[in-house]
Amino acid sequence: MQTVSVNRSHGGAQGVYRHASRATGTDMTFSVFVPAHREGQKLPIVTYLSGLTCTHANVTEKGQFQRVCAELGLIFVAPDTSPRGEGVPDDPDGAYDFGLGAGFYVDATQAPWAANYRMESYIVSELPDVIAANFPVDMGRQGLTGHSMGGHGALTLALKTPGRWKSVSAFAPIVAPSRVPWGRKAFAGYLGPDETAWAAHDACALVRARPLPIPLLVDQGTADKFLDVQLKPELFEAACAEAGQSLQLRRHPGYDHSYYFIATFVDEHLAHHARALAA
Amino acid sequence: MQTVSVNRSHGGAQGVYRHASRATGTDMTFSVFVPAHREGQKLPIVTYLSGLTCTHANVTEKGQFQRVCAELGLIFVAPDTSPRGEGVPDDPDGAYDFGLGAGFYVDATQAPWAANYRMESYIVSELPDVIAANFPVDMGRQGLTGHSMGGHGALTLALKTPGRWKSVSAFAPIVAPSRVPWGRKAFAGYLGPDETAWAAHDACALVRARPLPIPLLVDQGTADKFLDVQLKPELFEAACAEAGQSLQLRRHPGYDHSYYFIATFVDEHLAHHARALAA
Repeated sequence: MQTVSVNRSHGGAQGVYRHASRATGTDMTFSVFVPAHREGQKLPIVTYLSGLTCTHANVTEKGQFQRVCAELGLIFVAPDTSPRGEGVPDDPDGAYDFGLGAGFYVDATQAPWAANYRMESYIVSELPDVIAANFPVDMGRQGLTGHSMGGHGALTLALKTPGRWKSVSAFAPIVAPSRVPWGRKAFAGYLGPDETAWAAHDACALVRARPLPIPLLVDQGTADKFLDVQLKPELFEAACAEAGQSLQLRRHPGYDHSYYFIATFVDEHLAHHARALAA
Repeated sequence: MQTVSVNRSHGGAQGVYRHASRATGTDMTFSVFVPAHREGQKLPIVTYLSGLTCTHANVTEKGQFQRVCAELGLIFVAPDTSPRGEGVPDDPDGAYDFGLGAGFYVDATQAPWAANYRMESYIVSELPDVIAANFPVDMGRQGLTGHSMGGHGALTLALKTPGRWKSVSAFAPIVAPSRVPWGRKAFAGYLGPDETAWAAHDACALVRARPLPIPLLVDQGTADKFLDVQLKPELFEAACAEAGQSLQLRRHPGYDHSYYFIATFVDEHLAHHARALAA
């Protein structure tokens, strides 16, 4: 693991790191905030999965999480949203919603994507090992959150790996990718046209099959331009109600899809995680 | 004044606006955060002057000021750092420290800069009129702050216009531009080779001539790579001591020149302003 940069922030250290990923076959860049802590202390960790077009940098620079992570003693990890680099295929039309910056947190099964687009394995298996080996973390106390495509990632990976993440939340998540344009395009590309393979990556389908025994927190702005076509939180609300999944879905009047929305509510998300991750 | 964007943030509104400036002869873009407030209420205002290479966007996206401005009821204004646009001259070598993004908050007297590079007039006279006409502000309660070149701007404009700004602070300011490379290059270009004209824009010289009857707050990171060559806070410390200027200069171990430094201490700066600007 190579250090790209470290900046002192709120008494802790905001770092950016790079490593050669086995999962994706590329270099991967991620950021980690480590708050001030006692020598030898192991801290709980929250991983944040970003949305379409983002890298680690968006939330690191605009997410305003450092202050409250310092207060709560949380390590905050922000990975990239896709493999990148020479030879990594991209959307043939250069669209923002597929290929680079749009890995959708699945392991692609279709050519030419299957070689590099393995974000599920990267997030679930490889990155946690890198974090555990290099930072003062208690890997028994992990939380998962994310925004938009990353909210989809947080909900689906948590639902697929029960017990791994002790706390889960999402900002404006894609909750029913099998039924909305962003998800249908991505799944058709990465997973192929057989829609029966898609349910394993669809939060609504997953929660119906097996809810989690922990409460989920989801925030959604009502002025989000993607609300009605891509996000459809009411579908997840209904699925959770059917499945008996504890869900706090908060609708915030006037908030949009931007990092100003995330930064407004990140304190409350991190408090939700800290409560569940308390030693 | 034209609205570029408005995002709901921490219960208030983070906006970006553009207007045709008489002072600079160009369009100028600035940002304004307006916290939630009662109908008819007039709020105190803090103007933040940015550093070299920045626009309004750096502090707006990375400054993490919205939460505490919402708590304290402060309007936060962030102007650009130079005129920009077709026909505006730039450093002939495209250097980052002169020309575009580097107006140094002076009215240039030298060709070809004098036509557009009139940032002192813009900040002191024109922008406040635009703000007063368009936002719920109490212009009798204004504070001024800034970073690096913008810290120079905040200190010098406040010292030159006693009574205008009721509260003043700076992050890692250039305090002695007449004596450091950034300032000497800028002043030689904008003001000409006669150094006697420079003292009117040098915080150390200004405070010696006429201190302000209000306390100044200055924060400086000790790991700032510009500390010893460009910033030299000890020169301002000595000048304030000689002049009887109240100064709180805080040196923060390990902090650098980045927005992570600013975001760490912006809460305390805004509290400093709010105390002085309380109705």
